[in-house]
Amino acid sequence: MADAKSHKQQKKKTTKLGLSVAKEDDFSEWYTQVITKSEMIEYYNISGCYILRPWSFKIWERIQQHFDGGIKKLGVEPCYFPMFVSKRNLSVEEDHIEDFAPEVAWVTKSGDSELEEPIAIRPTSETIMYPAYAKWIRSHRDLPLQLNQWTNVVRWEFKNPTPFLRTREFLWQEGHSAFATKEEADKEVLDILDLYARVYEELLAVPVIKGRKSHKEKFPGGDFTTTVEAFIPCAGRAIQAATSHSLGQNFSRMFKIKFLAEDDKSGNAKDDTHNYVWQNSWGLTTRSIGVAVMVHGDNQGLVLPPRVAPIQLVGVPIYVKDGALGSVMDDALRKILDEAEKSGLRVKLDDRTDKNPGWKYNYYEQRGVPLRVEIGSRDLEAGKCVLVRRDNGAREDCTLEQAGARCVELMDVIQADMLDRARQERDSRLAVVWTWDEFVEELMAGNMVLAPWSLTTKSEEWVKDETKRISEERAASAGKGVDADQETNADGESKKLTGAAKTLCIPFNQPPMPEGTMCFTGCGEPAKEWCLWGRSF
Amino acid sequence: MADAKSHKQQKKKTTKLGLSVAKEDDFSEWYTQVITKSEMIEYYNISGCYILRPWSFKIWERIQQHFDGGIKKLGVEPCYFPMFVSKRNLSVEEDHIEDFAPEVAWVTKSGDSELEEPIAIRPTSETIMYPAYAKWIRSHRDLPLQLNQWTNVVRWEFKNPTPFLRTREFLWQEGHSAFATKEEADKEVLDILDLYARVYEELLAVPVIKGRKSHKEKFPGGDFTTTVEAFIPCAGRAIQAATSHSLGQNFSRMFKIKFLAEDDKSGNAKDDTHNYVWQNSWGLTTRSIGVAVMVHGDNQGLVLPPRVAPIQLVGVPIYVKDGALGSVMDDALRKILDEAEKSGLRVKLDDRTDKNPGWKYNYYEQRGVPLRVEIGSRDLEAGKCVLVRRDNGAREDCTLEQAGARCVELMDVIQADMLDRARQERDSRLAVVWTWDEFVEELMAGNMVLAPWSLTTKSEEWVKDETKRISEERAASAGKGVDADQETNADGESKKLTGAAKTLCIPFNQPPMPEGTMCFTGCGEPAKEWCLWGRSF
Repeated sequence: MADAKSHKQQKKKTTKLGLSVAKEDDFSEWYTQVITKSEMIEYYNISGCYILRPWSFKIWERIQQHFDGGIKKLGVEPCYFPMFVSKRNLSVEEDHIEDFAPEVAWVTKSGDSELEEPIAIRPTSETIMYPAYAKWIRSHRDLPLQLNQWTNVVRWEFKNPTPFLRTREFLWQEGHSAFATKEEADKEVLDILDLYARVYEELLAVPVIKGRKSHKEKFPGGDFTTTVEAFIPCAGRAIQAATSHSLGQNFSRMFKIKFLAEDDKSGNAKDDTHNYVWQNSWGLTTRSIGVAVMVHGDNQGLVLPPRVAPIQLVGVPIYVKDGALGSVMDDALRKILDEAEKSGLRVKLDDRTDKNPGWKYNYYEQRGVPLRVEIGSRDLEAGKCVLVRRDNGAREDCTLEQAGARCVELMDVIQADMLDRARQERDSRLAVVWTWDEFVEELMAGNMVLAPWSLTTKSEEWVKDETKRISEERAASAGKGVDADQETNADGESKKLTGAAKTLCIPFNQPPMPEGTMCFTGCGEPAKEWCLWGRSF
Repeated sequence: MADAKSHKQQKKKTTKLGLSVAKEDDFSEWYTQVITKSEMIEYYNISGCYILRPWSFKIWERIQQHFDGGIKKLGVEPCYFPMFVSKRNLSVEEDHIEDFAPEVAWVTKSGDSELEEPIAIRPTSETIMYPAYAKWIRSHRDLPLQLNQWTNVVRWEFKNPTPFLRTREFLWQEGHSAFATKEEADKEVLDILDLYARVYEELLAVPVIKGRKSHKEKFPGGDFTTTVEAFIPCAGRAIQAATSHSLGQNFSRMFKIKFLAEDDKSGNAKDDTHNYVWQNSWGLTTRSIGVAVMVHGDNQGLVLPPRVAPIQLVGVPIYVKDGALGSVMDDALRKILDEAEKSGLRVKLDDRTDKNPGWKYNYYEQRGVPLRVEIGSRDLEAGKCVLVRRDNGAREDCTLEQAGARCVELMDVIQADMLDRARQERDSRLAVVWTWDEFVEELMAGNMVLAPWSLTTKSEEWVKDETKRISEERAASAGKGVDADQETNADGESKKLTGAAKTLCIPFNQPPMPEGTMCFTGCGEPAKEWCLWGRSF
């Protein structure tokens, strides 16, 4: 049951301070080392379950705070629904249950007694919440109903688990809303997607592409799914970052969520007019943390964007052996840190005397702390200090007087630079193609590909099969066996890119499509929209 | 599986606006009506599971905020551990597993496949967290380790479920800490208990008694348990409000959580000195909301203490039929509410025109909104408004100019008055006795009893059996059959007090104990401490 491989790897390395592999050489092992050595994650003895240590949970708290503030402004209210659901309720919507059934965990016993009937643990809460919605919603006055809960959910997947990205239990928020009109509902879908994009771009400094999922990839039982898609350059894989679904009236018909419409202007009560509500659901998970780790991390370890870093600024004194200047250094650092703290920065002074400065640099670098301020005895004499950025290693001298203010200023600079750099890299890995040959070439180079598509599920499946076959062939000819199970593992560096490409989204931002453009797959159908394709986690 | 009775009751009443029973006549039914009509709770089709609607969840958010702020000041850090635990880990501490085993929910299937071995859902997380503690803690420098998580837990009890008070899934925080010394650990036990008392007294306006649990009632596997105990006068029952446990070194021995002690002053490294850490665990649950409802609620419904009320002040205009003054009234109210809001109050203007003022009064009273400001046309002419308190119904006139500031002021007054009133009532129901006869008399009058006790488990069990027997006899002679299962239900009004008394706590605040005082039970042993006894939820 234990996640034996990673466990062992972890153990093997715990005595070393630094990382033993480079991100570009062994991405999967690099990721494991970064998240364990930074003390974000501890492995656990049930496969697919991981411990979120304070260093990662505090990031989750910042994401929660930011997003929760955003949805409260939209009128969304907090609540908590049970995590258990009866088989009957879970099965009300057919497509929905069909998709989730294989991953559902079932409780069948309490103590030594068998339960009368097995009870499922929520994989998502549509079927738990909507019977209550049907009770609560009677009239247009009860609308909109917009609720959100922050919970754990369980999807007992059998693919290779990866901490944050693919776990059997994970944390998320799930929003569920009901509106009188499709217009209102559709507006909310996009409002929420905006908030998701802001979590990624403004907090995590990860650029995302907004769009709509293909028919094949949308939420089971919903009308359409919107998504923000991120890209992990080093893995050559995209990742679904968060999704906001329009459920249309599908669930409201199944669960009989109806409302009496408002009287019309003529004064004739339409009191026999029961309408089904228009619904949305939307979710953001702890996966977001893993995405940020993969995008920003480097060969020293974690690199945290200032806005989510539990510690933003660390002060390290460079004590001389006789120790005479020690307390003066500490005082000078404390003054800088206090000033930064007053401006809202999260700071720490590491005045431990049993660790040398080099050890401390490494320690905070591995944990991704955005900025370090050092003072040595010569600095002190010169009335200055040195600021060292984690994101690019840049060092700058600064007078002691200006240091506090400069640290505050640098936070915004670092945050903006990290997003810019990630966006430039992402853009450099996004190819626009018109033909199948170009498509394959770009895909095999580990890029995302924007291509004119006919929107047919048939061509989508063909691309999946073909790219899988081609990837396997090339891997085999490169003398490597490819295990299909590895498709979704983190082992995706471009040297051994495996697995099929799929549609990521149909971006909202569409380049012009010249008349007569044909589908890039060569299926013979005209292209309808530009679609983003790629390998995906 | 459905919680049929309560469900039906709820349905029967949904068309009525007010409560159909008095708190003193049928406490259980009153409670059900209060929590459903105020929209705190919705019943659910799995027994023992309930939906926390925004009106109650927002109270939980305030409790979380307050307590989380408190523990962060103590150095406690946030985290998240998996909710699943293997049978092997769950069983490491014998007393612990023995107590929890009968209530553990087991996952045995995912999709259609049987799991290799069943996996338990956490009833509490000692056995989930401590193997990691053993890995993380190596040296005195790793201590203290103080972690907290806000999660759901599952205890599949078969006693009668009661929303908030006794539910199969509930929300809580669980703190788990490890210290180098017993002194530090014991200090934290009490620091946390203080924070629990503050949540109850400062936020929920519920007075609590701090003390230590008897040997029989302490946390299974721990050294000693401290508790804050509340009292529900109308039910004649006490309730365990929150507990902070000293685990001593019991779990650290079982899980091998050892640390290398600090070098001693002599300079001789004691590097072969491995010590077991001293541990605590402590928890506060959503039960706290139910306690506040039971203590403060009245025959109009919920009464919320201002500090946790989602809306603290509601403005209700008393429109006249021709509507001419309507907008002027709204403007005057809005000005008052804006001013109050600027001072931090949570306000709402109910300017709906399809509901009359009487309906609105009732609506907000049922939901426990602490203060209402009304303006009618005569008030407007006189340049005044009327403020109506929810807690005692008191009305006062106020000039429009002073109203905003007065509302802000009244919040503190109401909060303090609610605590005072609850404390007076609680104190009037707390009897001090020296003999068994007095004890029985006070208990049967629905009071808590403070009595000099020998601390022996034998006498504790004797009291339990005797009081159960006496209660049954008296109930039978009053012509009522008593169902033992009802013992822990909310049906506890003094007219049909059933069930046994037990020790609630040995209060920290001990009255003097004259030399030679014998145990009140007549067991023949000398009394050692004053103990608080009572029926309990």
